[in-house]
Amino acid sequence: MEEVTGAQLIAESLKAQKVEYMFGIVGVPVIEVAMAAQAAGIKYVGMRNEQAVEACRLYSKFAARPSSLEAIPSVIEKAARTSMYGRPGACYVDIAGDMVNAKVDRSKVREVSCCPPPPVSLADHDEITKAISVLKTAKAPLIIIGKGAAYGRAETVLKEFVEMSGLPFLPTPMGKGVLPDDHPNCVAAARSRALLQADVVLLLGARLNWILHFGLPPRFNPDVKIIQVELCPEEMGNNVRPAAALLGDINAIVTQLLACVRKEGWKYPSNTEWWSTLKEKIAANAKMSKALALKETLPMNYYTVFHHISQLLPHDCIIVSEGANTMDIGRTMLNNYLPRHRLDAGTFGTMGVGLGFAIAAAALEKSENSGRRVVCVEGDSAFGFSGMEVETMCRYNLPVVLIVVNNNGIYSGMDPKTWKEMAKMGDLTSIAPPVSLLPEARYDEVMTAFGGRGFLVRTVEELRSALQLSLSDWEKPSLLNVLIDPSSDRKQQVIGAFSNIRQ
Amino acid sequence: MEEVTGAQLIAESLKAQKVEYMFGIVGVPVIEVAMAAQAAGIKYVGMRNEQAVEACRLYSKFAARPSSLEAIPSVIEKAARTSMYGRPGACYVDIAGDMVNAKVDRSKVREVSCCPPPPVSLADHDEITKAISVLKTAKAPLIIIGKGAAYGRAETVLKEFVEMSGLPFLPTPMGKGVLPDDHPNCVAAARSRALLQADVVLLLGARLNWILHFGLPPRFNPDVKIIQVELCPEEMGNNVRPAAALLGDINAIVTQLLACVRKEGWKYPSNTEWWSTLKEKIAANAKMSKALALKETLPMNYYTVFHHISQLLPHDCIIVSEGANTMDIGRTMLNNYLPRHRLDAGTFGTMGVGLGFAIAAAALEKSENSGRRVVCVEGDSAFGFSGMEVETMCRYNLPVVLIVVNNNGIYSGMDPKTWKEMAKMGDLTSIAPPVSLLPEARYDEVMTAFGGRGFLVRTVEELRSALQLSLSDWEKPSLLNVLIDPSSDRKQQVIGAFSNIRQ
Amino acid sequence: MEEVTGAQLIAESLKAQKVEYMFGIVGVPVIEVAMAAQAAGIKYVGMRNEQAVEACRLYSKFAARPSSLEAIPSVIEKAARTSMYGRPGACYVDIAGDMVNAKVDRSKVREVSCCPPPPVSLADHDEITKAISVLKTAKAPLIIIGKGAAYGRAETVLKEFVEMSGLPFLPTPMGKGVLPDDHPNCVAAARSRALLQADVVLLLGARLNWILHFGLPPRFNPDVKIIQVELCPEEMGNNVRPAAALLGDINAIVTQLLACVRKEGWKYPSNTEWWSTLKEKIAANAKMSKALALKETLPMNYYTVFHHISQLLPHDCIIVSEGANTMDIGRTMLNNYLPRHRLDAGTFGTMGVGLGFAIAAAALEKSENSGRRVVCVEGDSAFGFSGMEVETMCRYNLPVVLIVVNNNGIYSGMDPKTWKEMAKMGDLTSIAPPVSLLPEARYDEVMTAFGGRGFLVRTVEELRSALQLSLSDWEKPSLLNVLIDPSSDRKQQVIGAFSNIRQ
Amino acid sequence: MEEVTGAQLIAESLKAQKVEYMFGIVGVPVIEVAMAAQAAGIKYVGMRNEQAVEACRLYSKFAARPSSLEAIPSVIEKAARTSMYGRPGACYVDIAGDMVNAKVDRSKVREVSCCPPPPVSLADHDEITKAISVLKTAKAPLIIIGKGAAYGRAETVLKEFVEMSGLPFLPTPMGKGVLPDDHPNCVAAARSRALLQADVVLLLGARLNWILHFGLPPRFNPDVKIIQVELCPEEMGNNVRPAAALLGDINAIVTQLLACVRKEGWKYPSNTEWWSTLKEKIAANAKMSKALALKETLPMNYYTVFHHISQLLPHDCIIVSEGANTMDIGRTMLNNYLPRHRLDAGTFGTMGVGLGFAIAAAALEKSENSGRRVVCVEGDSAFGFSGMEVETMCRYNLPVVLIVVNNNGIYSGMDPKTWKEMAKMGDLTSIAPPVSLLPEARYDEVMTAFGGRGFLVRTVEELRSALQLSLSDWEKPSLLNVLIDPSSDRKQQVIGAFSNIRQ
Repeated sequence: MEEVTGAQLIAESLKAQKVEYMFGIVGVPVIEVAMAAQAAGIKYVGMRNEQAVEACRLYSKFAARPSSLEAIPSVIEKAARTSMYGRPGACYVDIAGDMVNAKVDRSKVREVSCCPPPPVSLADHDEITKAISVLKTAKAPLIIIGKGAAYGRAETVLKEFVEMSGLPFLPTPMGKGVLPDDHPNCVAAARSRALLQADVVLLLGARLNWILHFGLPPRFNPDVKIIQVELCPEEMGNNVRPAAALLGDINAIVTQLLACVRKEGWKYPSNTEWWSTLKEKIAANAKMSKALALKETLPMNYYTVFHHISQLLPHDCIIVSEGANTMDIGRTMLNNYLPRHRLDAGTFGTMGVGLGFAIAAAALEKSENSGRRVVCVEGDSAFGFSGMEVETMCRYNLPVVLIVVNNNGIYSGMDPKTWKEMAKMGDLTSIAPPVSLLPEARYDEVMTAFGGRGFLVRTVEELRSALQLSLSDWEKPSLLNVLIDPSSDRKQQVIGAFSNIRQ
Repeated sequence: MEEVTGAQLIAESLKAQKVEYMFGIVGVPVIEVAMAAQAAGIKYVGMRNEQAVEACRLYSKFAARPSSLEAIPSVIEKAARTSMYGRPGACYVDIAGDMVNAKVDRSKVREVSCCPPPPVSLADHDEITKAISVLKTAKAPLIIIGKGAAYGRAETVLKEFVEMSGLPFLPTPMGKGVLPDDHPNCVAAARSRALLQADVVLLLGARLNWILHFGLPPRFNPDVKIIQVELCPEEMGNNVRPAAALLGDINAIVTQLLACVRKEGWKYPSNTEWWSTLKEKIAANAKMSKALALKETLPMNYYTVFHHISQLLPHDCIIVSEGANTMDIGRTMLNNYLPRHRLDAGTFGTMGVGLGFAIAAAALEKSENSGRRVVCVEGDSAFGFSGMEVETMCRYNLPVVLIVVNNNGIYSGMDPKTWKEMAKMGDLTSIAPPVSLLPEARYDEVMTAFGGRGFLVRTVEELRSALQLSLSDWEKPSLLNVLIDPSSDRKQQVIGAFSNIRQ
Repeated sequence: MEEVTGAQLIAESLKAQKVEYMFGIVGVPVIEVAMAAQAAGIKYVGMRNEQAVEACRLYSKFAARPSSLEAIPSVIEKAARTSMYGRPGACYVDIAGDMVNAKVDRSKVREVSCCPPPPVSLADHDEITKAISVLKTAKAPLIIIGKGAAYGRAETVLKEFVEMSGLPFLPTPMGKGVLPDDHPNCVAAARSRALLQADVVLLLGARLNWILHFGLPPRFNPDVKIIQVELCPEEMGNNVRPAAALLGDINAIVTQLLACVRKEGWKYPSNTEWWSTLKEKIAANAKMSKALALKETLPMNYYTVFHHISQLLPHDCIIVSEGANTMDIGRTMLNNYLPRHRLDAGTFGTMGVGLGFAIAAAALEKSENSGRRVVCVEGDSAFGFSGMEVETMCRYNLPVVLIVVNNNGIYSGMDPKTWKEMAKMGDLTSIAPPVSLLPEARYDEVMTAFGGRGFLVRTVEELRSALQLSLSDWEKPSLLNVLIDPSSDRKQQVIGAFSNIRQ
Repeated sequence: MEEVTGAQLIAESLKAQKVEYMFGIVGVPVIEVAMAAQAAGIKYVGMRNEQAVEACRLYSKFAARPSSLEAIPSVIEKAARTSMYGRPGACYVDIAGDMVNAKVDRSKVREVSCCPPPPVSLADHDEITKAISVLKTAKAPLIIIGKGAAYGRAETVLKEFVEMSGLPFLPTPMGKGVLPDDHPNCVAAARSRALLQADVVLLLGARLNWILHFGLPPRFNPDVKIIQVELCPEEMGNNVRPAAALLGDINAIVTQLLACVRKEGWKYPSNTEWWSTLKEKIAANAKMSKALALKETLPMNYYTVFHHISQLLPHDCIIVSEGANTMDIGRTMLNNYLPRHRLDAGTFGTMGVGLGFAIAAAALEKSENSGRRVVCVEGDSAFGFSGMEVETMCRYNLPVVLIVVNNNGIYSGMDPKTWKEMAKMGDLTSIAPPVSLLPEARYDEVMTAFGGRGFLVRTVEELRSALQLSLSDWEKPSLLNVLIDPSSDRKQQVIGAFSNIRQ
């Protein structure tokens, strides 16, 4: 008879499900689980902050509490499987503290092996036919590529489909990189126009939520026909009734569509009015954006900063991003070239996730020796939510390149001189704008405090040099504290320009 | 400008989603909604009891609370759609009381039309091929037909598949009737044996939960190969890893399987040892069951009662059932011949649902003039949960035939004489067995109290006559109060026989 | 070593907390608990319906799940204690099913004895002084007696206080009977007037919720001063800020007030304008109510019915009540003479609780041989929620007198002739008013079905005779099915009168 | 007609309840509320991280969602009142986002004034008598002073009671300072001995939870008599049945007890065996603790660090603390001299609360110009949870003195040299102990990054000098990064000593 503890069973069950990393903060009794995980060959990354563990249950796709030690392996298998099958989502297993050190005879524990990859289903043939015939009638067709296409690993067949069909496409934030942002058919730079005037939309694994303006006027054509390709039946027809409903695995369905298009030899012509409209808008926006990017006044603006970052980032880097303006503008200026190489704050814009994402990605890339960089682009307020995690990066020598785009505030801030004058006028808690943070805070020194590299950046030259140095260092994390114009008039100007850019 | 109230919007939105019936109990402010529903052409059935409305949220597939009058139509559409797409389930819309009489300009309310039928997806071709090749290797194959096959309306193609493939099948409780219970390939009467010895199971829209013993030993062969046909990705591989994972619409997938089998011209032979084993077992069980059914001693036993009911029920009747022994034994003795003609207490064995199901079914059949009877078979304890709903049946002249199989208790009871003697011995709350109910309670008189027909039944002759009279009356509901042997020794004997019957 | 099961521990822990009765419906694994309870000397009453057990947790004052068998006694003690200490409330102990038959060595279980009676606290002396001085300035003082005074068993000292101070009082629904409704200082028959014109209110254990119109205009004087006597600190000052805040045990505080009044020899004069106003209003209402009560037209009205019931009920009977009009009007017409002799649907007007209350009260009175009757006055709709519980009354020979005041509907109904004519006009689900029930339903026969006595009552003579017969039978329950005028015009008339009556 | 927005109503309602500070992170639509708050004269402190707002509801004493703008003032009053009346606790008001900018006519909003201070109740006289008579029989009496005594502001009367009665006392963590820790009757330095051998305990506003070992053996005398003084009735008798149950306001009840003792002229003699035992134990522990504190080896140990801090802190400073060893040992070594001058991680040991507490306290002391310092003593891991809040301290010039007691880990860590060698051996995620943090992390530089003062401290001299400098600076916050011995052997030694110290 061999006895095993709950901690061991947890660790071994996670290992059996091919979990490679565990992230956490130890405390009694988590410490035994962390040690058992390492013993079972799972890597452990100790973090600095954990938020709302008890609340997880509410937001999880599946939550369970094993009623006995013997139940642990199957509950963990169910959680792992459920997190990947159907629409992916977090699952929560709540294990009572006193189970961790409790013991059970191993022979009484049924072994549970790793769940296989998610099952695949195909769209109904009639709907495929309907979809193709709707596409053929389109004067102004548009493909929207969502994160479902990334999860579904549809990139190869989708590239062939886009090129064979000649259709313009637009990625959602988390769909960026499934096809490269610089693909000739990508019309992201004319996003608003494309959404507004498209008469047929092929929606690939994207939801018609607020990010896509619910698919409704005034941001969409009221007569637009949606061909919806979707994994999750309950999502089908949400907000807009589809002209064709293609339920199933995105990769499999694009393969079905491609076969049809190939068989019929159909291609949307490149000399249409629609393509002209889109290309004109793209050119106009590029011009305006370039004008802002090349402005030489100091402090720099968002466009200048992202323009130069964009030029220097390797195409295979993983971009993590969170913030308000920083995430929003960065998304339009920083290209993705590969699928699943972008992690951002997601549909709910949850702040504080960026550094954790970056650490997870960097730990993986480092252990795989992939040669890929992790670049984390943060607003200054967003950085504050979990800034202490730079110690974790330093502790594990994770060479993350952290770029804090610092406008001294949330949405906007104040310059140091104005701040100082205001401070003389009374109690700051009564008069400081709620959006203001400390002007020119030295976030770079938070990094150097733990042995990483820090750069204070005010000019284009400093930016380029600091980024090049950071990218060449594979031993340590770096933080570029990029000071930009905090003034609100500038903000309005940029926002003005910014909305133009999106037309 | 036309003003509409919240009550009207609720009613019209339900109507737009093709809701035909509303069931409820009025009170302020539900009364306005019920009246608006009738005005909008929805039928309203006023019930006598409603249970735990506030708790619904916890058990619903989708729950929402419209934040404004304008949001009502789209929330109701989402609830209606979600209840039917993917795995069906109840949805809960919680509308604040003061919204019901609030008003809004109708032109501000976006119209939302009825959601289309659920989208359909197909299994991956490779998995189909794998499934067929696994089936071909089987020495002891078995099809299990679950309620997913009924929801998916797979009956036509499934009949063809069963007959072309020559495979034995077994329905789950809610899968009964997808194919007729008297189909020559049905091996329900050898259920335990079939489950235990099958080496390949084709699982059609059924879950491996406690009703199917989790698909695990000792009730299943430990080496059984499961070919899982399932709509819901998260359910795939639950408890047992499938040999082939066919994700998608059951009807579509059986069509795919049929095409394969037909193309290959494959058929499982009828002269195998497996078929011999199954047929012997069926014959043995039939003999034993018949022996019990034909016992002439009084009071009657369960088998006698169900045997005669079974002979008299029309094949197209809808059977509703709840109870412990009554539902369990009735399920094996009362055949279903048509799909979706059976409603029982379901996976969780919730008591008190039977009369509500019967009323809903009878209201529909009556309004469609379908000529189909609704027969509700209840244990005496189960009847107590919502027995007052017979008033509802009488009020609306719904000709339900209610059969209460009355053993004076839960699991078992006492005969009147023993009860009376016990009552002399002291306070009944201290000495009466918790399982006992009042002996020979006149449930039939609960029905006559409201103008329906009531029958007290003690013998086979009374049973047959009362049932024939009830089935010939299309104006009123009837209740047959069938007194059976309450003694626990007899129960053990039946249970003994009963477990044999299931081997 | 002595082993005990979870079921035994549950039963013994309840017994240790002096629990005398258990109510439930058996099923696996509750049956073992019920049997263990009887073995431990707890009486068990098997009911016919239980609603929403899983939802209890949400509505409980305290909910816990013992994590081991050893924890059961202390969790049960905590639940029992918490249900009685502070503001009383239901507590929920959720015991995992597999604990019931699990075993543990008894010597490992710490014994937990019964919790003592609730601790008592007194009001601050300064607030007592303030309260008395506010009272002395009052021109139109009023005592409101709430259920807190009943829970606090303040009746003896309160009677002395009322008589020594000469103040008028008004009971809330659940405060009825703390002092007899026919006490000369009771102004319940001038409720609306008393609330509207009082300038100082001594609020004894009552909440300013919707039943008391939140203590706000237009139903209260905007300048009213509230002297709040309250057990629960969080309730103090709710909705209206008190002129004096007397926190503590109601009985102890009334004793403090009495001591003060006695010492000062103060008494509110009986010859004030306020007393004249109240007495005039009482007389006027009595006259109108009597006129309605003595109307000789048939069908009878609510007032006639309650008038005669009131004359015949023994003063020490326990009145249980639920329904809409029935509970509302009955409350004004049926006097309570003793504290804690009334049980009604409470603050939330939950329907379906009446028969359960009546069974619990009757089981207790019977076992104590108290000679007190339990009389349950139900509306016909309310009766429908749990009408099958009459079988429970018959099974245990509980001599409850059930009076169903039957107006063929909810709020109002239809007479049989009109109903029949309407039924000819089409599908009843489309045209029957949602408030209507079956006209002249024979609820009395639901009682006779189980061996109880049933009476159909149309006239005053039938009512008096049936009630007298019922009250003289101590062996069986009875049900009086009292048919009253269902027509809505009559209802409006009564309602009109009724609102007058409450001025 | 004057229109007000939801944001204004929220701000004004908070102001009406005398709320002085708001803490938050702006974002749409919180920004409008923050601005309205400043406009209403409420001070706003912008923080850097907020955790789990949606989860608050679960852990709040009261939670509500106003259903209309008009309801905001009364809901906020109810929340403010409930948070202070009875046992204090957080309350949660959830206001829908679109209410913030919605408008309403001000004249329709009922004004709600600030709730008065909590009502006070007294103990029953008989229980007071019982308590005194139990106390008089005691051979080894002990007072335990809990946070209830601090909330109840019982310090003045309690000092008089302790000195008149001559009884020894012991504070709980949050009861420290109600009487000064250096009071001659304080036996905190003999805590374990005092708890173990006391035969009568006067429990003043403290709960018998895990911090007090549930009041049960083996940490308490099994025959101990508990005199429980408690505000909350449901807490009375929890875990141990009291010999006397004194329910009510702590201050009022101690006044009652004092009156009794004074009247009877009773005093517990100072020459008892019990006092000798306690004093001997205190002396022995003081000696051992002093020996550890004066050890001159480097790195320093916890005792040395706290010994010198203790000598330099002003008696009226506010001590904030969190961490594992740091909070635990610090609690025994850092004296409190004034009530309500200590804030620590509380019953649940929630990490991450310290800096927020310190900011709140410092903002208040600064605005009141109180001359009181806020000193925040943090473990290094605890600091990581919300370390970025030092930016907030710098932004608002809050002169908090932050002391990070840095042992390079959680419970224990590694020295830099050993860490470096380990890092050469492989992937740190596989081999670094889960409890280790980066050795000698420069938390002081996190403070200097934002303009505060930072000190790296290795020796006693550096510690004293840095602390003196920090305490003399009233303009800026300071952080002392105090490096102590991280090695686990030392830890065991200290823990050994530490457990002795507590005997």
